Amino acid sequence: MAHRTELERLLAATLEPSRFKDYGPNGLQVEGREQIGRLICGVTASLALIDAAIEARADAILVHHGLFWRGQDGQVVGWMKQRLSRLLSHDINLFAYHLPLDAHPELGNNAQLALHLGWQADGRFGEQDLGSIGELPASFADLPSLTHHLEERLGRATVQAVGDGRPLRRVAWCTGGAQGYFEAAIAAGADVFITGEISEPQAHYAAETGVAFIAAGHHATERYGVQALGRHVAQALGLDYQFIDIPNPA
Amino acid sequence: MAHRTELERLLAATLEPSRFKDYGPNGLQVEGREQIGRLICGVTASLALIDAAIEARADAILVHHGLFWRGQDGQVVGWMKQRLSRLLSHDINLFAYHLPLDAHPELGNNAQLALHLGWQADGRFGEQDLGSIGELPASFADLPSLTHHLEERLGRATVQAVGDGRPLRRVAWCTGGAQGYFEAAIAAGADVFITGEISEPQAHYAAETGVAFIAAGHHATERYGVQALGRHVAQALGLDYQFIDIPNPA
Amino acid sequence: MAHRTELERLLAATLEPSRFKDYGPNGLQVEGREQIGRLICGVTASLALIDAAIEARADAILVHHGLFWRGQDGQVVGWMKQRLSRLLSHDINLFAYHLPLDAHPELGNNAQLALHLGWQADGRFGEQDLGSIGELPASFADLPSLTHHLEERLGRATVQAVGDGRPLRRVAWCTGGAQGYFEAAIAAGADVFITGEISEPQAHYAAETGVAFIAAGHHATERYGVQALGRHVAQALGLDYQFIDIPNPA
Amino acid sequence: MAHRTELERLLAATLEPSRFKDYGPNGLQVEGREQIGRLICGVTASLALIDAAIEARADAILVHHGLFWRGQDGQVVGWMKQRLSRLLSHDINLFAYHLPLDAHPELGNNAQLALHLGWQADGRFGEQDLGSIGELPASFADLPSLTHHLEERLGRATVQAVGDGRPLRRVAWCTGGAQGYFEAAIAAGADVFITGEISEPQAHYAAETGVAFIAAGHHATERYGVQALGRHVAQALGLDYQFIDIPNPA
Amino acid sequence: MAHRTELERLLAATLEPSRFKDYGPNGLQVEGREQIGRLICGVTASLALIDAAIEARADAILVHHGLFWRGQDGQVVGWMKQRLSRLLSHDINLFAYHLPLDAHPELGNNAQLALHLGWQADGRFGEQDLGSIGELPASFADLPSLTHHLEERLGRATVQAVGDGRPLRRVAWCTGGAQGYFEAAIAAGADVFITGEISEPQAHYAAETGVAFIAAGHHATERYGVQALGRHVAQALGLDYQFIDIPNPA
Amino acid sequence: MAHRTELERLLAATLEPSRFKDYGPNGLQVEGREQIGRLICGVTASLALIDAAIEARADAILVHHGLFWRGQDGQVVGWMKQRLSRLLSHDINLFAYHLPLDAHPELGNNAQLALHLGWQADGRFGEQDLGSIGELPASFADLPSLTHHLEERLGRATVQAVGDGRPLRRVAWCTGGAQGYFEAAIAAGADVFITGEISEPQAHYAAETGVAFIAAGHHATERYGVQALGRHVAQALGLDYQFIDIPNPA
Repeated sequence: MAHRTELERLLAATLEPSRFKDYGPNGLQVEGREQIGRLICGVTASLALIDAAIEARADAILVHHGLFWRGQDGQVVGWMKQRLSRLLSHDINLFAYHLPLDAHPELGNNAQLALHLGWQADGRFGEQDLGSIGELPASFADLPSLTHHLEERLGRATVQAVGDGRPLRRVAWCTGGAQGYFEAAIAAGADVFITGEISEPQAHYAAETGVAFIAAGHHATERYGVQALGRHVAQALGLDYQFIDIPNPA
Repeated sequence: MAHRTELERLLAATLEPSRFKDYGPNGLQVEGREQIGRLICGVTASLALIDAAIEARADAILVHHGLFWRGQDGQVVGWMKQRLSRLLSHDINLFAYHLPLDAHPELGNNAQLALHLGWQADGRFGEQDLGSIGELPASFADLPSLTHHLEERLGRATVQAVGDGRPLRRVAWCTGGAQGYFEAAIAAGADVFITGEISEPQAHYAAETGVAFIAAGHHATERYGVQALGRHVAQALGLDYQFIDIPNPA
Repeated sequence: MAHRTELERLLAATLEPSRFKDYGPNGLQVEGREQIGRLICGVTASLALIDAAIEARADAILVHHGLFWRGQDGQVVGWMKQRLSRLLSHDINLFAYHLPLDAHPELGNNAQLALHLGWQADGRFGEQDLGSIGELPASFADLPSLTHHLEERLGRATVQAVGDGRPLRRVAWCTGGAQGYFEAAIAAGADVFITGEISEPQAHYAAETGVAFIAAGHHATERYGVQALGRHVAQALGLDYQFIDIPNPA
Repeated sequence: MAHRTELERLLAATLEPSRFKDYGPNGLQVEGREQIGRLICGVTASLALIDAAIEARADAILVHHGLFWRGQDGQVVGWMKQRLSRLLSHDINLFAYHLPLDAHPELGNNAQLALHLGWQADGRFGEQDLGSIGELPASFADLPSLTHHLEERLGRATVQAVGDGRPLRRVAWCTGGAQGYFEAAIAAGADVFITGEISEPQAHYAAETGVAFIAAGHHATERYGVQALGRHVAQALGLDYQFIDIPNPA
Repeated sequence: MAHRTELERLLAATLEPSRFKDYGPNGLQVEGREQIGRLICGVTASLALIDAAIEARADAILVHHGLFWRGQDGQVVGWMKQRLSRLLSHDINLFAYHLPLDAHPELGNNAQLALHLGWQADGRFGEQDLGSIGELPASFADLPSLTHHLEERLGRATVQAVGDGRPLRRVAWCTGGAQGYFEAAIAAGADVFITGEISEPQAHYAAETGVAFIAAGHHATERYGVQALGRHVAQALGLDYQFIDIPNPA
Repeated sequence: MAHRTELERLLAATLEPSRFKDYGPNGLQVEGREQIGRLICGVTASLALIDAAIEARADAILVHHGLFWRGQDGQVVGWMKQRLSRLLSHDINLFAYHLPLDAHPELGNNAQLALHLGWQADGRFGEQDLGSIGELPASFADLPSLTHHLEERLGRATVQAVGDGRPLRRVAWCTGGAQGYFEAAIAAGADVFITGEISEPQAHYAAETGVAFIAAGHHATERYGVQALGRHVAQALGLDYQFIDIPNPA
């Protein structure tokens, strides 16, 4: 059991959100009850996650993708109305951390994805140092092996991979929709870049530079940081903790 | 009885919000039930107004000052949480119109304040033509008479007035917190400028230019437009209609 | 045979690029030889397309995705160096038209995709009116039929589709990477929205609003406008014309 | 007697204006004679202050509110012409310091107001750390007592105060037109916030959060910093010094 | 004799300054006496011009280059102090018109320069249509003849000219510091571009494109518009009028 | 002989371009062959320099003014097409360093110009500390002597100099088109300011402040930094090195 502000302070001390220029507010996004005993974690504050958290008797939800983003005008209509009214009528707190959760050197999405996949970073690249780069273990040193490994470890059938078959030594990665970091990954010396999504230009860049590109799923690559963070704070404050995975094809 | 979108369309057709560059979204700010029979109007979507509207069994609230403004980051905490959860749990629609409601030539705050005070505009000035200017009736052609008239008509004891006693012929006005329009009013030929609030510089400008400045209350000057608009749309759509005034010292 | 400036003038007169706020320069992006007899069209000015055009003895290439985009700093290194030096050493002109080619009411990507799929627009929505909306023919009025139809007509196996099985009457579409237009499509009354790519949030919006979302491929949906435009100008100026399709998994 | 640049250097060394993002230039705003023997201080460079300073045979005027603010276009007409020509024709220097004078930990408006009212800051909050917060002495620990104390100490009859009667322990304050800092003061744990002006929203926030709000006058709260600064530099450089108070209802 | 606002209205009606996006305020920049009998025109509101105007007993000065430009912070020190105090102490009005005076089709700098040089515009080019283009009379259809003609007509010894000797048919021009328009002039079909100043890149562009570039002096090319405008308004309002030329090597 | 990336790393380590806010990309602007044996330096990447470098069998060109600047849209037409295709068809690397090369304390344009002219900086001023200031040797302590010295040392006949004959003790300078730094130089205590170009306002400022202004040529003042840098990196990496001077009247 912990007071809401105690949890908020621990999250802020852990992730240092003020160091980041982000696309939305990091921290408490929707205020719920003061005492928190049960913490539910998930990737995105979707209605499905909120409903599952209600079902699980959550006092607070901790996510990577919250409700509010720069450019929204605030209107509470449609899906936003549904999500907000469900949270408010059940008095559940919503905490969201975006880039600070991608970047944390131990609990972050990039660090945890690497841990899950069996390698680790020895460098950083790109804006706000959000990209990670490291040595690829010899057992996945070609595109088919690496792709197979990803499908197996992420439990996701279709992984888009573009490459020309050359051996892979340096792997760069950035979870989520980081396809725009591909060129920075190439400049940083990657042989292959792994992220969640692919857009139109990346297939051409891969073909033309010989650096392989793998789109392993936005959701699939961003499930690990919030679990590590949730476990960490739950343990520190003596909270019940559960991760709920809402499948997402993207 | 009207469908929510019918009311929204009528409001948009009347006020043409897309013609304005505004500080927040004009239109449906919080989505409530689909069928609207009872419309409550007020100046500001404060908790007190929302609670009074719940008491009055409102299906929709129509205000001049809504909940969302440019620069907010979206967080639903503190007073915002209270206002939003009250609206959502009672499934009440919130419609807000800001500058379009100040500026409407018949139903707007400026036009209705003038009607209430006994004069009318023959010109416009300032950014987006939000300021109005006209002839002051001879019976209020000096600062004490005009101040007394305002106190009487607005039902508000303390009206701040700064001037040097010269006769007043041209009156400029802009409801609410339009103290920054004082210099444009002077350039437009005003002898006196009426708005809701005063800040530090205006007293000096009044003293130095001889143009009188009256701060008659932000709330006090902005109660008329929303009433006219509310009556207008309620009549057109056959809705119950009520204006609820929440006193505000500012 | 036409002079380069004659072709440029016809393209500008047809597409009126100055009416658009775009992400890169529309028009002649790389200057080649003055006399143009053979025009090659393609979706993207990738190295593969450029090499195929050289093979085909092109005098000019016309594409939807050119080489230059806002935010680039101009450096001619890596893939950019390869593409540019290939174009320059073969003295081939590169013409690129982005949003003006999406939006043209007859030759544009949206219009041509609809023609190819068997329906047509009766309205527009979204920023710069780039989205199209219309009635879906009864034969594709459910998600499985529509998905099957798209796979067949676009010749592309995997089409991501998210929906809940309700009947579809109004279809909105915008070719390419227009997933960010999904909410505008919902507001415009669509039952299903078709674009090229999907990102993380759209699956949730589809689940929560009941409006279906189909990602049919960025490349797959943007192959039709440039063909129509190419045929149109080639015919007008008496040029040889050929469309070269470079497959792209995205 | 001191040279103009000697005074300017001492002011800059004391207030470190380059550390602030401000709304106008801090430092020498209007150049007058080189030798300065007599320094007049005031809140605002109004015509009344300038005329009083001429009367008092000033060589330099030091103010909190100077003549130039971001967004002005430079035109020297109306009141600006009067103020400038009076200064220039009497060859009087005008020095102005805005936010650096609010924020100085000993000589600043916030620090001096607290000294004058009988308490002191133990923390800071808000943008550029401009807000101060501290313990309220037990003798003013309720709104009526605090209001009475303010009226007495500031010598100003009407102080607007909004609150619900609960006991007050933590006081936050920021002199001048800092009503926009109210929410940051609430988040910082204040029981009451004191500033110079009130606008429409603050009365509602006070009612809804239970945190009291006091508008004690923009001018009334900003008279103390410039006096402390003036005395400090006058003493250091051996100048004659006088503070001239020009009353302002706002 | 005319009232200051009468002159201001005539100037605004003639030049329509609100149609331009400019670098400083167009219109009355410094307010002087109300009655204007004697109008002095010049290129720049320099101290030398102001002193000459005082000598000539000016009531108003009309210039192309005023005192205030975007990016200044308002400080009245150094040369600005000298100019402003001279104007204010002699109660002289300063009117300044920048781009509207370059662009006016009859009285503007471009139109008047062409008249003075013996040709006229048949087209416009560049941002805000500020550049002019036309046929060069046969007698100056080569660079040495044109340069000689310019030196003779502008009364200025050194005119920088860069070109390769080819015959000149189309001349583009834009008075003042318009070297940045050279590329637009080339795109518009010019054989030679005349402006006031040259910077480092233009010599290379001239050498590489074969389009000649002539820097005939910023001051030298901008003396004609203000004379035409001054004569025009002086005649309309019955004012004394005189142009005073302050030599400038740039 | 050095690899391209070795040269790039040495240049970056020497000049630290990431410390500057610049108008274009510093570093490798056009990628050529990997092995570099022969380095040609010049002021500007003009076609004349590129052709001379081809003639001299350059592997890389190092310049102060590269090809790409903020505000360009990327189009490769006209002179840009000529320069780029010449570089690319000869596989020559282009390295460009702008402000970092002006500012380097030993190899930079300002430092090297001073060395060439016989004095040195003891201070810095202006944006990004780009301006230098120091004591003028007694032998050039008046404008005619200094002008004569500049003409002799820079080998350039016409140097524009504006001043009133007073003795000169402090000299400020900033190479190239830094006329906009004149006021900062005056504020920094200069008696004379030397830069490459003059625009219309500087002649007036010089006349009104008594601080002399010398325009010694943009090209003429910026020839020294790139030579020092070129020699430095050529020596460090064992490259052939040559400076090629392309005359420029500006």
